[in-house]
Amino acid sequence: MIQVSEAKELIIKNGITSRIEELPLLEALGCILARDVTAGIDTPPFHQSAMDGYAFSYENWDKKSNLSVEGEIQTGNYSSERLKANQAVRIFTGAPIPPGADTVVMQEKVLADNNAIKVLDENISEGGNVRPKGSQTKKGEIALKKGQLLTPVGISYLAGIGISKVSVFAKPRVSIIATGKELVQAGNEISEGKIFESNSIGLVAALHQLNIQPVSVELVDDVEEEIEQAISNQLQSDILILTGGVSVGDYDLVPASLEKCGVHKVFHKIKQKPGKPIYFGKYQQTLVFALPGNPAAVMSCFYEYVVLAISHFTQKKYYKTLDLPLTKDFSKKPGLTYFLKGKTGEADVSILDSQLSYLLNSFAVADCLVVLDEEKEHFKKGDLVPVSMIV
Amino acid sequence: MIQVSEAKELIIKNGITSRIEELPLLEALGCILARDVTAGIDTPPFHQSAMDGYAFSYENWDKKSNLSVEGEIQTGNYSSERLKANQAVRIFTGAPIPPGADTVVMQEKVLADNNAIKVLDENISEGGNVRPKGSQTKKGEIALKKGQLLTPVGISYLAGIGISKVSVFAKPRVSIIATGKELVQAGNEISEGKIFESNSIGLVAALHQLNIQPVSVELVDDVEEEIEQAISNQLQSDILILTGGVSVGDYDLVPASLEKCGVHKVFHKIKQKPGKPIYFGKYQQTLVFALPGNPAAVMSCFYEYVVLAISHFTQKKYYKTLDLPLTKDFSKKPGLTYFLKGKTGEADVSILDSQLSYLLNSFAVADCLVVLDEEKEHFKKGDLVPVSMIV
Repeated sequence: MIQVSEAKELIIKNGITSRIEELPLLEALGCILARDVTAGIDTPPFHQSAMDGYAFSYENWDKKSNLSVEGEIQTGNYSSERLKANQAVRIFTGAPIPPGADTVVMQEKVLADNNAIKVLDENISEGGNVRPKGSQTKKGEIALKKGQLLTPVGISYLAGIGISKVSVFAKPRVSIIATGKELVQAGNEISEGKIFESNSIGLVAALHQLNIQPVSVELVDDVEEEIEQAISNQLQSDILILTGGVSVGDYDLVPASLEKCGVHKVFHKIKQKPGKPIYFGKYQQTLVFALPGNPAAVMSCFYEYVVLAISHFTQKKYYKTLDLPLTKDFSKKPGLTYFLKGKTGEADVSILDSQLSYLLNSFAVADCLVVLDEEKEHFKKGDLVPVSMIV
Repeated sequence: MIQVSEAKELIIKNGITSRIEELPLLEALGCILARDVTAGIDTPPFHQSAMDGYAFSYENWDKKSNLSVEGEIQTGNYSSERLKANQAVRIFTGAPIPPGADTVVMQEKVLADNNAIKVLDENISEGGNVRPKGSQTKKGEIALKKGQLLTPVGISYLAGIGISKVSVFAKPRVSIIATGKELVQAGNEISEGKIFESNSIGLVAALHQLNIQPVSVELVDDVEEEIEQAISNQLQSDILILTGGVSVGDYDLVPASLEKCGVHKVFHKIKQKPGKPIYFGKYQQTLVFALPGNPAAVMSCFYEYVVLAISHFTQKKYYKTLDLPLTKDFSKKPGLTYFLKGKTGEADVSILDSQLSYLLNSFAVADCLVVLDEEKEHFKKGDLVPVSMIV
């Protein structure tokens, strides 16, 4: 039986490196860039008016004459006619400055009369109200760096500089196998001794929260051949998660089945509560988590260990960890790290009732797991404790 | 021109109430429950062993005799045979306690010999290691309350008590219309005076982040009839977002087009930077946001105002707001609230460079907007400022 910190180190150490994949921009939302993104064009692609107003040449203007207005350039149009001294053109925000012009005066700062304007802006200077070509991003320049999380604004930014595909760290292919003779799928009747299967549904939801669609979800009976068949069918996934059958009872067939399928055990059992019997192994490049069947243990182990492996794979941090003061005293037995369902307040955290591993009623309204140190027994109100956020 | 706080109040005041819809459990992930969820069954549905061990009647046991083992109950099976005094049955975690039994002794705390066991657990008491029927949730009891965010664990919990559908506040139907003669769709060549359209793409990504798939995304030219047609086609949406054409230039046709389509103006212009020309209106039950076309203004207005309306609709809080100290002095002009691209550190926030409304290069790596008060001019390092998180 190993400690929580050792288990986490072993997961990282055995962690697999993500594939790099090229995705259409919108599909890459929330992914981490695996390569620098280089701007394909100058942005703005031309000297652009920043205002509705009049464009002219500052240098060629005598600073006192009215400017004669020689037509207009609507945003989206352009003019290739070169402006002469003391000439101006009506221009709009986003429109290209015509040849010969370098400065824009705002429409609110002129006196317009027929086809001439008088410039009233005393502070006007050369290049004023013009967004120079390439002033955001120059062609060939790195627009976003490898390792950057691609946010909605990042997507807008890249779209604006002509990028339609990006290379990101791929999401893992995840398979789920829930084992247990007692499990009945939702929508059916439960007869004596049976319960509704919920672990795979909770795991699917937790994966959806990370924008991962599992490649396979299967329910199998506590029968060796069936478990082995299900495992070997899914060993081409990046991460295989099993639930149930991982303890030492006569029908806990999962560890032996994994061994038969060639999975190499990395650890079995962590000094923790809930989820002590957790198993972690590896088959070639596939990570295998076999989680104890109690619903709270499944979800707790998912957030503490499986998310760690996924994070390592995608290079993305999914949940925050904080240190927060407890709202009440709490005592536990020494020798196990406790992961307790908690609810954060403005700047503190409360440990909820109903912590037993078969109960989910408080976990369902929790927003975090409160991590209580293996060796420590007594925690006082106000003691800072590590908190793993889960929403 | 109104203040930011007035604008937010007007959005809330004109906000529309969400429809309630019934969704399959997994599809309701991340939604807010619109009705209490009542447990359809007792959970556990029977008295359940919490351990691998032996079940027996504590009361009918003479506390010294060995117990004779009368068969076994595998998890998923059951036995209707009543145990007699000093009899036990081999039982596994999750299996139903047979009639006549009420207590389980762990397998590690017995001496097993042929078909008899000697109980070695000195602390054993009546009901020990048994999870009573209904001890998590009783049939007819409220399992989760209206207003609760449905988390992955919540989904696992409800699945376990036999719930397959829930009533939640629906997500809004959102339509997007990007206006501008200068806009070219990604994948095409941009000719002189044109730019790549990115506002609608950024908005779609931002909606995806909220798990909302817009019902329509359209690009239209700066032509009155086209804008009016596009608007009237989308007035059955819950929220209509337009970009561009909302200022006072000759080609800013959106406010007039909205009026022609029967949209009632609630406000036009907010004392803010960026996004001053923002328009907000209402048509029957449809909220209409017309955002200025500069990319940074679009995204900033989305996070500050559109998300507020969506939040009101779905009853869900999407992003945190915090008060954090500035890492550096900052000065601004008084009279406008500034929304500045920021990046949070461990416990502070930095204002990024490149704040102009046509630039997205720093916004793309920002994780928040720093809100600087309308009236204030000078901010010192260490001053606490409101921060709207956006990731």
